This record gives sequence, C-alpha cells and structure tokens, in this order.
Amino acid sequence: MSQRAIGIFDSGVGGLTVYKEIVRLPGEELIYLGDTARVPYGNKGADTVVRYALEAANFLLSKQVKLLVVACNTASAVALPFLEERFRVPVIGVIEPGARKAASVTRNGRVGVIGTAATIGSGAYTRAIRACRSDIEIFTQPCPLFVPLVEEGWADHPVARLVAEEYLRPLTERGIDTLVLGCTHYPMLKKVLREVLGEGVQLVDSGAETALTVTTILRQMGLFHLSPPGPPRFFVTDSPVQFERVGGAFLGDRLTNVQRVELGMLGPAGERFEEGENK
Amino acid sequence: MSQRAIGIFDSGVGGLTVYKEIVRLPGEELIYLGDTARVPYGNKGADTVVRYALEAANFLLSKQVKLLVVACNTASAVALPFLEERFRVPVIGVIEPGARKAASVTRNGRVGVIGTAATIGSGAYTRAIRACRSDIEIFTQPCPLFVPLVEEGWADHPVARLVAEEYLRPLTERGIDTLVLGCTHYPMLKKVLREVLGEGVQLVDSGAETALTVTTILRQMGLFHLSPPGPPRFFVTDSPVQFERVGGAFLGDRLTNVQRVELGMLGPAGERFEEGENK
Repeated sequence: MSQRAIGIFDSGVGGLTVYKEIVRLPGEELIYLGDTARVPYGNKGADTVVRYALEAANFLLSKQVKLLVVACNTASAVALPFLEERFRVPVIGVIEPGARKAASVTRNGRVGVIGTAATIGSGAYTRAIRACRSDIEIFTQPCPLFVPLVEEGWADHPVARLVAEEYLRPLTERGIDTLVLGCTHYPMLKKVLREVLGEGVQLVDSGAETALTVTTILRQMGLFHLSPPGPPRFFVTDSPVQFERVGGAFLGDRLTNVQRVELGMLGPAGERFEEGENK
Repeated sequence: MSQRAIGIFDSGVGGLTVYKEIVRLPGEELIYLGDTARVPYGNKGADTVVRYALEAANFLLSKQVKLLVVACNTASAVALPFLEERFRVPVIGVIEPGARKAASVTRNGRVGVIGTAATIGSGAYTRAIRACRSDIEIFTQPCPLFVPLVEEGWADHPVARLVAEEYLRPLTERGIDTLVLGCTHYPMLKKVLREVLGEGVQLVDSGAETALTVTTILRQMGLFHLSPPGPPRFFVTDSPVQFERVGGAFLGDRLTNVQRVELGMLGPAGERFEEGENK
C-alpha cells in the first residue's frame, strides 16, 4: 500500500500550489488531475461540484492511489463528506488545515477568509475555524475576480491592487489580524495582498498547511514511501497546452508530460465507481 | 416546420444579449440553453468546445427546433462547421453577422476585434471580415477579464475602466474606427468601452446583427411563425439560481422558469445523436 502514489486533484492549475508543497516529501510519487475542461468550480452550484469531485476522485482511485488530496477549496468545501463516505483511502481537503492554522495564529481573534463564491457560500471555513476555537470572530469575502486575474498573468498588475483594495476593505475595517487564502490561486497574489493589508495581517496559505497534514496522516498510517519515487504524472480534461503554460508559472518550472483524459460521467447514484476502490 | 421553436445556445448567460434581440420577432417561440455547468468556453481548447457545442445542439434538436442560433462567439468561432455538417436545420453563428457589419461600417478600413482567448485564437473574425472586404486591416485583442468583470456586476466599476484601457490601448494606437464586440458579454460593457474609445469608434454588437440574420433566414425559408408563441423556455446545466440572478441583469427583467437538464455526453463519433434530426 505504501508503494502507491498520492493523488491530488483540483479544478485546474490552482492545486499546483498544493502539489508544490507535497512534492517536497521525499520518496512520494504524485499523480495530479486538473479538471480543466470544466474549470472553474467556484461559480457553480454545490451539487454540480459534488458530481465533478466524485468523478475526479474516481479517476485517481482507478490509478490505485493510497491517499487523496482535494487541492481545491471549492471541492473541499462542498464535496469532502461525500468523498469520505464513498472511498476507503484517506481523503484530505484544504479547508481544515487552513482553518486550524488560522485559529492558532490569530492574536486578536479576528480572522478574515477569502475564497470563491461557492467556498464562501458553503460556510465551510467558518464552521472549521469555530470547531477549533469558538470565540473567534470570522469575516468572509468572496473574491471572484482573483482567479481570472492570476490566470491572465496580472497577479502583480495595478488592476490586481485595485481589486484587492475593494475586496479587502470590509475585512481590514473589521480589524482582522489573520487572513485565510481560501483558494489555491491566491498564494500567487501574496505580494499584492501584503501591500494592501500591511504588515499587521498574517496570511494563511491553506495549501502549505495541507502538505503538513498529508505528512502527519502518512506517518500515522505507516504509509510513507521511502524508495525513490517515479516521476510525477499530470492529467487534465482539456487540452494540455494552456495547463502547461499557466501551470509552469505556478510551479516556477517547466511543466511537461501532461496527458489528457476523459472523466467518466457518474449518475446520481455513482454507479460507475470501480468495485474494490469503494466502500 | 414553421410552428417549431428557435433554439439558442450559449456557454452561459451571455447569449441572453442575443436572445433579447431575437425575442423581438413577433410570433416566434424561443428555447434557450446555457451550458452553465461547464462555462466558460473561452479559455478551453477547440476540441473541447466542439464537443460541448455538439452536445448542446443535440439537446436543442431533441426539442425539435427549426433553426439553431449559436449565441456564443467561442462556439461559433470553432464549432460552426461541425454543427453545419452534422445537422439539417439552419445553423446561425454570431461571427459572420458581426464581421459583415464591421466591414460595412468602417470608413478608414481599420477594424478592431475583441473576444475570448479561444475566439481570437481561432482567427474566425479575421477570416470572416476579410471574406467581406480583403483590404481591411484587422487588429485583434483577447480580453479574458471582461467576462468575469461583467459576471461580478462590475461592468461600470473603475476596475472595468482600468482593464479596458489596458486591453484597448494597442487597438486605439492603431487608429481603429470600428470595434467588434466578439463576445456576448461585452455589450454589457458598452458604456465603459465608449468612454475609453471616445466618440470616433463605432461598436459592432454581433448579437444584434445576428438577430437580423435570423429574420432574413426565416423569411428566405418561409419559416416565420405567425401565431402567438408559447412562453420562452430556458434550460441550464448547473443550478438555475445563479443563471436567474445574473441573467435577470442581462435581460433587465426577472428571469424565472429556468429548468436544469443534463446534456448527453457524446463519443468522438457523436454516436448518441437522435436519428432523424441529423444528416
């Protein structure tokens, strides 16, 4: 079992910020799936996102992964219980690690959370932070323009600064001292966010925290892979060209060997799941 | 045949700017499909867009429409030949009507075209305008942030102005006197575009031109429907809630009675097409 790969999925390239942290684990083999033919998830309804997440997970399970990382905040926010219920392997989302970190670093107990409309609308971060510390005040803000700005390569453009000022104003006015980056694209905006927020606000990168959780789970379950890993494998559902281009910027490295796949469509009862990989 | 409805499809709400023009035809019944579970198309690969367009068209053909309007610039740009080849009913895209109008109104022969990355990358407008008048100089610019700005409700926000200035600068520097709005969301930005471009540049709204083409085709084919039409029907592939909200802003009217549907997935050979509706 420990010889198997770790599966990571996201709606697109954003999850590469999580991949980048997990790939540092020595000896682990990674398989990444970006559902680029249906990206983004963040502006879609919860049941649609659940269906997409089940289909993506099913694909990775067919590759015999030992652990599933949902490197997409939207999918983590709305689909995690469905994935945990359906699969036997550990399923790790990005919400809880980010929430735990935020609860531990805030000094004044005022935490901001930014994310897609679907992530914020789900209330998942609010519940997860409250579960850690019930006295924290949480202020949330959907930021739908941040993802397209990053994808356009404008993360450091004056437009990004103006958009960030507009989105973050209600949070800074509430005196937050901690901001959860509740979308895997947002770490690309760190520079602009720091400028707009000033030095007094800590940024919590859910992706980085998730990598730590992965390490913990692997250790607890005795699933560390200690021999030299095979090369990482990347799969996407749309043409690989755009993924390689934008993804390269995310990784700060050339991204090649990306394969296109078609995800099986699931009926409402998920009847196409592989036997043996399901509960 | 003339009693049948007109089918209109788009990747999402944008096609409502075309719908709004066509619905003025007296006596015609309209069926609109927005593929909101997979929106946007404009940042996806051509073969993915072709598959989605075939699936959307197949759905509308199953509703027995007499004419198919592809109210999505991206789908028109990359999928029109495939749709025309596959179906017997007339298929009308938004590219050619917009191109024809631009060619007829430019005085200095310098035309700008803005659209999604996929639309601009396809070169469809350039080819269509050149087919009308080979001496026209064409300057194109992908504007990926315009759609999310409109969807965020920021069409008249200072951010929209700053983005428009950035995108349009290369076009105004070339001295264009005509700008084709090559995406159905862009008419929502007319005010900002006019401010940035000044009075000397004419805006061509492909959607409005497409409605005129629909009229012409219906007349030519004797397909006018002259009895009182049934109410329009709207179908979407994601939850109707977001479509009703954003779509209402597009129509300047309340949008209700939106039904959710699942589109059949097609294999590469399109083997699930209904018999009788295909060639």
